[in-house]
Amino acid sequence: MSGIKVVTIGGGSSYTPELVEGFIKRYEELPISELWLVDIPQGKEKLEIVGNLAKRMVQKASVPMEIHLTLDRKEALSGADFVTTQLRVGLLDARAKDERIPLKYGVIGQETNGPGGLFKGLRTIPVILDICKDIEELCPDAWLINFSNPAGMVTEAVLRYSNIKKTIGLCNVPVGMRMGVAEMLDVAPERVHIDFAGLNHMVYGLNVYLDGKLVTDQVLDILSSGASMTMKNIVDLGWEPDFIKALRVLPCPYHRYYYQTGKMLAQQAEELNEKGTRAEVVQGLEAELFELYKDPTLDIKPPQLEQRGGAYYSDAACNLINSIYNDKNDIQPVNTRNNGAIASIPHDSAVEVNCVITREGPKPIAVGDLPVAVRGLVQQIKSFERVAAEAAVTGDYHKALLAMTINPLVPSDTVAKEMLDEMLEAHKEYLPLFFHEERV
Amino acid sequence: MSGIKVVTIGGGSSYTPELVEGFIKRYEELPISELWLVDIPQGKEKLEIVGNLAKRMVQKASVPMEIHLTLDRKEALSGADFVTTQLRVGLLDARAKDERIPLKYGVIGQETNGPGGLFKGLRTIPVILDICKDIEELCPDAWLINFSNPAGMVTEAVLRYSNIKKTIGLCNVPVGMRMGVAEMLDVAPERVHIDFAGLNHMVYGLNVYLDGKLVTDQVLDILSSGASMTMKNIVDLGWEPDFIKALRVLPCPYHRYYYQTGKMLAQQAEELNEKGTRAEVVQGLEAELFELYKDPTLDIKPPQLEQRGGAYYSDAACNLINSIYNDKNDIQPVNTRNNGAIASIPHDSAVEVNCVITREGPKPIAVGDLPVAVRGLVQQIKSFERVAAEAAVTGDYHKALLAMTINPLVPSDTVAKEMLDEMLEAHKEYLPLFFHEERV
Amino acid sequence: MSGIKVVTIGGGSSYTPELVEGFIKRYEELPISELWLVDIPQGKEKLEIVGNLAKRMVQKASVPMEIHLTLDRKEALSGADFVTTQLRVGLLDARAKDERIPLKYGVIGQETNGPGGLFKGLRTIPVILDICKDIEELCPDAWLINFSNPAGMVTEAVLRYSNIKKTIGLCNVPVGMRMGVAEMLDVAPERVHIDFAGLNHMVYGLNVYLDGKLVTDQVLDILSSGASMTMKNIVDLGWEPDFIKALRVLPCPYHRYYYQTGKMLAQQAEELNEKGTRAEVVQGLEAELFELYKDPTLDIKPPQLEQRGGAYYSDAACNLINSIYNDKNDIQPVNTRNNGAIASIPHDSAVEVNCVITREGPKPIAVGDLPVAVRGLVQQIKSFERVAAEAAVTGDYHKALLAMTINPLVPSDTVAKEMLDEMLEAHKEYLPLFFHEERV
Amino acid sequence: MSGIKVVTIGGGSSYTPELVEGFIKRYEELPISELWLVDIPQGKEKLEIVGNLAKRMVQKASVPMEIHLTLDRKEALSGADFVTTQLRVGLLDARAKDERIPLKYGVIGQETNGPGGLFKGLRTIPVILDICKDIEELCPDAWLINFSNPAGMVTEAVLRYSNIKKTIGLCNVPVGMRMGVAEMLDVAPERVHIDFAGLNHMVYGLNVYLDGKLVTDQVLDILSSGASMTMKNIVDLGWEPDFIKALRVLPCPYHRYYYQTGKMLAQQAEELNEKGTRAEVVQGLEAELFELYKDPTLDIKPPQLEQRGGAYYSDAACNLINSIYNDKNDIQPVNTRNNGAIASIPHDSAVEVNCVITREGPKPIAVGDLPVAVRGLVQQIKSFERVAAEAAVTGDYHKALLAMTINPLVPSDTVAKEMLDEMLEAHKEYLPLFFHEERV
Repeated sequence: MSGIKVVTIGGGSSYTPELVEGFIKRYEELPISELWLVDIPQGKEKLEIVGNLAKRMVQKASVPMEIHLTLDRKEALSGADFVTTQLRVGLLDARAKDERIPLKYGVIGQETNGPGGLFKGLRTIPVILDICKDIEELCPDAWLINFSNPAGMVTEAVLRYSNIKKTIGLCNVPVGMRMGVAEMLDVAPERVHIDFAGLNHMVYGLNVYLDGKLVTDQVLDILSSGASMTMKNIVDLGWEPDFIKALRVLPCPYHRYYYQTGKMLAQQAEELNEKGTRAEVVQGLEAELFELYKDPTLDIKPPQLEQRGGAYYSDAACNLINSIYNDKNDIQPVNTRNNGAIASIPHDSAVEVNCVITREGPKPIAVGDLPVAVRGLVQQIKSFERVAAEAAVTGDYHKALLAMTINPLVPSDTVAKEMLDEMLEAHKEYLPLFFHEERV
Repeated sequence: MSGIKVVTIGGGSSYTPELVEGFIKRYEELPISELWLVDIPQGKEKLEIVGNLAKRMVQKASVPMEIHLTLDRKEALSGADFVTTQLRVGLLDARAKDERIPLKYGVIGQETNGPGGLFKGLRTIPVILDICKDIEELCPDAWLINFSNPAGMVTEAVLRYSNIKKTIGLCNVPVGMRMGVAEMLDVAPERVHIDFAGLNHMVYGLNVYLDGKLVTDQVLDILSSGASMTMKNIVDLGWEPDFIKALRVLPCPYHRYYYQTGKMLAQQAEELNEKGTRAEVVQGLEAELFELYKDPTLDIKPPQLEQRGGAYYSDAACNLINSIYNDKNDIQPVNTRNNGAIASIPHDSAVEVNCVITREGPKPIAVGDLPVAVRGLVQQIKSFERVAAEAAVTGDYHKALLAMTINPLVPSDTVAKEMLDEMLEAHKEYLPLFFHEERV
Repeated sequence: MSGIKVVTIGGGSSYTPELVEGFIKRYEELPISELWLVDIPQGKEKLEIVGNLAKRMVQKASVPMEIHLTLDRKEALSGADFVTTQLRVGLLDARAKDERIPLKYGVIGQETNGPGGLFKGLRTIPVILDICKDIEELCPDAWLINFSNPAGMVTEAVLRYSNIKKTIGLCNVPVGMRMGVAEMLDVAPERVHIDFAGLNHMVYGLNVYLDGKLVTDQVLDILSSGASMTMKNIVDLGWEPDFIKALRVLPCPYHRYYYQTGKMLAQQAEELNEKGTRAEVVQGLEAELFELYKDPTLDIKPPQLEQRGGAYYSDAACNLINSIYNDKNDIQPVNTRNNGAIASIPHDSAVEVNCVITREGPKPIAVGDLPVAVRGLVQQIKSFERVAAEAAVTGDYHKALLAMTINPLVPSDTVAKEMLDEMLEAHKEYLPLFFHEERV
Repeated sequence: MSGIKVVTIGGGSSYTPELVEGFIKRYEELPISELWLVDIPQGKEKLEIVGNLAKRMVQKASVPMEIHLTLDRKEALSGADFVTTQLRVGLLDARAKDERIPLKYGVIGQETNGPGGLFKGLRTIPVILDICKDIEELCPDAWLINFSNPAGMVTEAVLRYSNIKKTIGLCNVPVGMRMGVAEMLDVAPERVHIDFAGLNHMVYGLNVYLDGKLVTDQVLDILSSGASMTMKNIVDLGWEPDFIKALRVLPCPYHRYYYQTGKMLAQQAEELNEKGTRAEVVQGLEAELFELYKDPTLDIKPPQLEQRGGAYYSDAACNLINSIYNDKNDIQPVNTRNNGAIASIPHDSAVEVNCVITREGPKPIAVGDLPVAVRGLVQQIKSFERVAAEAAVTGDYHKALLAMTINPLVPSDTVAKEMLDEMLEAHKEYLPLFFHEERV
């Protein structure tokens, strides 16, 4: 590989400048010669705004990286080395529905492992599997690196239902946890290491190290004494100190949805009244960002972007691509085939776990058994992800209902059915497999 | 073994006449020469009422089975062949608290796998482990057959924390499901066979057979078209037909607590207002039964007993003892060491599964992987049972809190802690391990 | 099913009268209306001799079972309920080569798990898979019951490489072991029960029971004190008493090939000089049997047949078919999909293990972990079986060499290659997949 | 940790100068302030010769590392950070018996996984477990790094039968394989990476990489075309090219004992006649080395030492200690607790596998299932190691016989017993657990 070709599908995203900045910073060791930003016709305007900013950034940095903007995915994919996907099928409007409809039924939407995440998966997975078919044909040696949520469910689907083996799902939650711990300990993040294991948005820090020494107990003590470790897009409701002491592993921010369901729901209902859904808040932020991006004198990533929830995503992505390209053998938490790393989860299922990152991909580090107390919840979300992925590829109504009902945020089969029916109808145009008559 | 000695701990229970009737009916092939009914001093009066009825029943039936009544457990256990345990530490008053306190927090109590079940386990397990120590000393070859709830958690605890290997946990739910299916199909129960697998009160019928032929789909169709299969002590709220179609295995009545949490909670809250807790309803029924039992002319099991929730318990128990004694090699669903029968559950954990019943005990039939959709919930309850059992033997507050919080019926860590604290206080006298100062 | 149709492929075998006798004896509960004996053109003469004897036997017994003789497999299979296969591709001449060639290299041939077994598998598996295709088309609900050796490898191949799920491999070794133990204990065989687990011809008796009580230690003491438990076709060289004491489980006669390789080899070399190969001895016995069968006055199974090695085979087969047909739920050791019954062996691999026999097939009883000491050898033979089955379906030379080299009876890669090359050449006409130019 | 204290038990070994050289070279990043060389009274003279050389080496290199020589193990261990063990209980005389006695019976002795290895284990394990007890008492935070053979069996024993969790078994075979591959490819060893997995002296290279790119096929082609990859102390008999093509993974030199048993045996018998056992050859080499070491002007590691078989051992050891001390998170193949890394081997058993080396020890990289073809042999050696380790800690004659008989190099139970009896007698003085009357 020399003169790396990267293709970013969903290139018109407001996150793209972070990615471009990350590639520029690493150009010396990661010489990307072509970056193709791909989007769909509805995203043409945003693609051009972001793409032009990207071109200015590259020029300003004086790196010989060509920026290509296109609506022709196949043209872009041909001969690619890395393909990144950052899709929002149905855009933020769809996410707003994922959040708003469940709340009507007294249920948290949750765009990854909840009812909202189910629908994001139903919309996204068929598109990703189409991309997989293109990759198989046009760039069979490329790595597919997916940031689109629900990243765990998407990785599960790619592993089970495509012919692509070189795929990795990426999430910024583990990086955020590391940053949070570093802050708690008041040390540089590089000195903190965490043994991550679980599923996407359901990942635990089994052990925490400072300079290689175990400090898990110390960190849990700080956490249970009130320090917050949170992410911009999840309200910090705090943990019950005795619960953290009891758990003995570091939860991720998304665990609040499961260990504090009642509180989170109340909070979301309140926010909805005040500010609208998170999707709607983000729509406002995005509009502002695109206004900034349009400024023809802007030739760096604007600092306002960092306040958006997805901090560290691009950093995680650039590090991952860099480690693959340079066979770094460093350790990063990613979503990949379990291969026995976490006991009791099938070898061929996706997990989020620390891996050694090599030129031939991630090799998961064996975790053995998860602690008894967390094993059940992880298995429950894995059941949900698998049934949901099957629903997404088959368009089977009953599989979708099953996924919805077994989701731990959903209070009953009846509510599940009512929400399912309403959400299917609301997202109809993005769910062709569920509405066969539409396909003729 | 000739002249079998059976010891029933908690012999003063209102269920005992069923057991006695079962033994009388099977006397020919199961020649029990001594039946010892044991109880604690507080239960002396009931023990005498029930015991005297038992004596009249035996006399009437003209079988040479001696009935012994005692408060001295060690005297009774000496040389026993079978020990059955049907305990209620704290009696129905304690159960009423297990049900009433959680409802204050908007949580279902559920006396087996819910918050109530956690406390029943915390009270019961130390007593059962004491009995195990006595068995080890006084009748090391005896079989310990436990009917006390939470039967799954108790079996887990005996397997992990005692030296008794010959132990079986027994439940009437599977028998009830078989009866229910027979009724749906309008056939004799003997013609119905079900592949049971899961945990106690969390057991699924993976396949249903009529005369050995698979009829699962047919049964699920009937069930989803509205037929009820329920037990006396669980309200039948009906299943969402599409959910049953989606699930593709037969749920047990207790699954309603997990798949219909919202509805069950509403129902319980309503019932509480109208009739009090289930425990309080049962207290009324029991009082009536004991009035009947006192009648010196009564020498058979009174028919009113059958209306009590625990139907089939004694039948299940007598069949099990009979099959062990006579090495019948027939198939019965019991709680026993998994030994690999259900994939992903540790070999040394308790499961409820169809077993071949032999003189040397139950041998589980291999199930392989549970269906993806149900695997998660089963694992979650198994996590709960294991953490709860550990809390029970250690008296560790944080383990108890952990068990409470990870229970799927509990909405948050904060509610968990509040309920835990109130319930610990309410049951203080039966939880010496949690109140060390009391033990001095 | 009424008026059962059974098809026996390889119906011209000298064993067939046993099978016919078994069906006649069980006619009352197993009403077979048609028995089709199928053979290939080269076997026509034998088929007629045996078939006519079968007709006389049925007439004599006055049971209304039609005997059909045919060379047209497809005609026979149409609408069958049970298909039994007792093939010898290449007949006893091929077996003679399987035994004689390895001995030239100082290696035991062993017609099941040794180099001879590899070649028997390479010849047999493609034929069985062809039969599977016919079954799929002509009688998809039929049970395929295979007695052809190597029965473990054949079952593995059917499970992995055909669409037939309703298949069972059958062997007389476990029945022989039960008979042997009964003889040692001087009791009726019905009183003996053994927990069988392992692979075909690599099965152990983990526990032995008399009237349901464990007597394993007692039986091993007798065995180690010199009592023989053997089969007609394996020389009894006796076990080292201390080894049996050390092993603590009951080995099968074929284990001598692995635990007494040196002695068995010497014995076989000696026998070869004196009597020729076992195949050649059997050829003599068979010729005598067919002379007997020709006698038009013979209308029962001649007693001489019992002296042949395969005693109990037909009994095992008839019992199995009977238990399936009548949904007996009794326990029989058969070769079937592991499904987690034996830990560390893949769920989808064939094992030989005690099963509950039902109308929907065998359900294996969970064994858990095999004893540490025997686990390794079992895994090694399973590796051999799997690689050999893969070689058989692909005709891949290197897979065949790999299977040969990893076989524990083979002393080196070089000897493996020499034997392989000579045996491939010797069996050329029965190995079309390995000689592609032949196939054109 | 600052001012590291290292204790080397068996410090009088001729290998020690390599270790000292390794520590000197790394002093900058691995500042060892004290190196204690410990030996037993019989080894006093050698200890002093080697120890004085070590002192001269350190002085010459001007590093402030104190060299302590002692016969008092407990004094040495107090407060140690790292304990390395390089024991030879019974010295080379015992090894000569381990090799010579089996050859009398036509069996390869093999000092690690064969009959010789069994006896080396029986002599060594109790001594190592005594050291573990001392460590527990005197330096509970120390890492125990064992180079003594049989390293796999010893690690298994420490994991199962001691309270020491911080233990690692080390072997130079993987390093040698990497060097061999680098030579074949004519590249610097640093550019070669191999995915190692299996057991000690039974390790495979599952994948081979050059600069991070897979080159397994290329390497196997070179290997099968005749290139040798061997170790000084194993005769290179070459591999059958087609076998290597069939195997598709890189075997280790010790695999010749199993895949080329016949040839290896013939070779060893011949060598025995010509040169005596390998132990006797080594005795000659050692005598020469000690003569060199005595030279008071020698102050570096003499180059002759490299011709000894154990090349790279010390390098491996120094690298391991360095990576632990400095939390390097690099990848090294070591013997450690499996923890699920290799499927089908118990989580709590020792395996040899690539690990990330951290300050808190090695974390194995998940391998998943071993290739089918090699799984069986690996399991068989694991069975052998486990039974042997149990024999070593119990002194149970029957367990020892069982280990001997199930070893794949041993041709029969009878030969096993004869060898066992002769070897027990020959090693009597070092096997107190097997000769209880000696212990009084």
